[in-house]
Amino acid sequence: MTTDVLISEVGPRDGLQSVKATMPTAHKLAWIDGLHAAGLREIEVGSFVPARLLPQMADVAEVVRHALTRPGLTVMALVPNVRGAEAALASGVHKLTLPVSASEAHSLANVRKTRAQMVDEVRAVVALRRASAPKVRVEAGLSTAFGCTLQGPVPEDDVVRLAVALAEAGADEIGLSDTTGMANPAQVRRLFRRVRAEIGERTGAAHLHNTRGLGLANCLAAHDAGVRTFDSSQGGLGGCPYAPGASGNVVTEDLVFMFEAMGVRTGVDLDRLMAAREALRAGLPGEPLYGMTPEAGLTRGFTYADGRVPAAMKGTA
Amino acid sequence: MTTDVLISEVGPRDGLQSVKATMPTAHKLAWIDGLHAAGLREIEVGSFVPARLLPQMADVAEVVRHALTRPGLTVMALVPNVRGAEAALASGVHKLTLPVSASEAHSLANVRKTRAQMVDEVRAVVALRRASAPKVRVEAGLSTAFGCTLQGPVPEDDVVRLAVALAEAGADEIGLSDTTGMANPAQVRRLFRRVRAEIGERTGAAHLHNTRGLGLANCLAAHDAGVRTFDSSQGGLGGCPYAPGASGNVVTEDLVFMFEAMGVRTGVDLDRLMAAREALRAGLPGEPLYGMTPEAGLTRGFTYADGRVPAAMKGTA
Repeated sequence: MTTDVLISEVGPRDGLQSVKATMPTAHKLAWIDGLHAAGLREIEVGSFVPARLLPQMADVAEVVRHALTRPGLTVMALVPNVRGAEAALASGVHKLTLPVSASEAHSLANVRKTRAQMVDEVRAVVALRRASAPKVRVEAGLSTAFGCTLQGPVPEDDVVRLAVALAEAGADEIGLSDTTGMANPAQVRRLFRRVRAEIGERTGAAHLHNTRGLGLANCLAAHDAGVRTFDSSQGGLGGCPYAPGASGNVVTEDLVFMFEAMGVRTGVDLDRLMAAREALRAGLPGEPLYGMTPEAGLTRGFTYADGRVPAAMKGTA
Repeated sequence: MTTDVLISEVGPRDGLQSVKATMPTAHKLAWIDGLHAAGLREIEVGSFVPARLLPQMADVAEVVRHALTRPGLTVMALVPNVRGAEAALASGVHKLTLPVSASEAHSLANVRKTRAQMVDEVRAVVALRRASAPKVRVEAGLSTAFGCTLQGPVPEDDVVRLAVALAEAGADEIGLSDTTGMANPAQVRRLFRRVRAEIGERTGAAHLHNTRGLGLANCLAAHDAGVRTFDSSQGGLGGCPYAPGASGNVVTEDLVFMFEAMGVRTGVDLDRLMAAREALRAGLPGEPLYGMTPEAGLTRGFTYADGRVPAAMKGTA
């Protein structure tokens, strides 16, 4: 299926590592199957981090093994360092992502390394990948790119300079993350355009939060600036435990609704996405799930970008 | 104070007529005072409709009388017809707004008149205004401009044609309303640009809902298309009782946050807006109030478009 944008679902990693409960492995697999069945073609399925730090991710190798059986799916995992990358590459993932903070304060709090040390870590992971699994893609996600609750404003020059350094270190994609929910649409447009002017097609995903309700407006702004990959999380699950006050990834359901209504093809089926939401709910009973489109339902006359009528709407449109 | 956009607060009308409870008059006045103190310079304070239809609006003349004492405030009221306009003009309002449905089905359900009859009604109100209060401005708000839950899609040509007819009938401003929460950003940009190409500076407010979470993205799109007046409602109060499934005006608090963060001056102070929110809460105990910015609070490093630091942030930025 031809699509105009790639929705990269981060819930099984970003979402599940942010909640207190641990989702049982069988439920994780069922949820990932549901997301895949809904048409999602890139899923960040977990983190390769020590289980004593994030017990929710202890089963990541098993989750990857299952996800690799889903046809057409790019299986992605977060790794904080070379050791994590070794384990991830051994598991067979298609794509790695490393978080690199644009704020020095956040970098030290999140991974206990300076930004420069993280650029070196990315360079080492790229070398490892080249030697052992040359087809695997390496993404660096620039967290706190739009501001930091620890440091305050983050100079745009710092973000651009780091993006260039990461491209030179060999990262295939460099994304920008609004870790702390501080981004605004004018800033999103400006910063993505500046980064694109420097590193061109290596410019990666927009990872935006809905902390102050601006998540979709910021996605629209990123799309205006040429971004075509968007991270989001089913039910808005997730946030960052080291950024006080931050919460709420952009909700996949609402993001898909916005793009499809605009005529931008995501390849995602909203009826099936609602079924995946039930799988998420079953695996995390009692956890609040967000999303305005799931609350309101689809609207009469809504059609997908390619003209299809949602199953739920047939006979009413 | 110079501003870049006008936030037109519709809560005391659109919000209060949509809730079951009736806010006592003294609380309405305190809330309006709070909104004015926060810097809002246009407030739709009520509807001139028969009290048996909307008992929440029975005290509208008294509310107008009080609002007229607030310096620099444009006092606005909704009128469905000539009879309402007569009462509104007698009360001394500065601006009238008439709802004109772009969908014939919604027009019949909402005001029991066809669209053509409503254009005639606007023409008659303009004549009445000319004769009795020539300084009063007349706005027509095109409801269901982006879709209708009763009719389904609303042809854009219908909207453009009605906007032209209303301008010819003498309306000073013609706004577009997403009554049913069906608008998407591509459509908002396209339709406002088409209307502006036809009626130029008579293009009025964007009145957008957050039913499926797209409220702020749609406001951003309208701003891109040259719109400079935005209707919103404190706490997201409001909706339309005749459009099943519709709910939730854009939240004033979040809209102000978005624009100020972008560098677009609204003239509204967020600390004082939070105080007005408490006045709203006191007048409608138990009614749910929405808003992500009120939930999350302001963020470290946030400054207003003119560089001021919010009182709540002083010492932390």
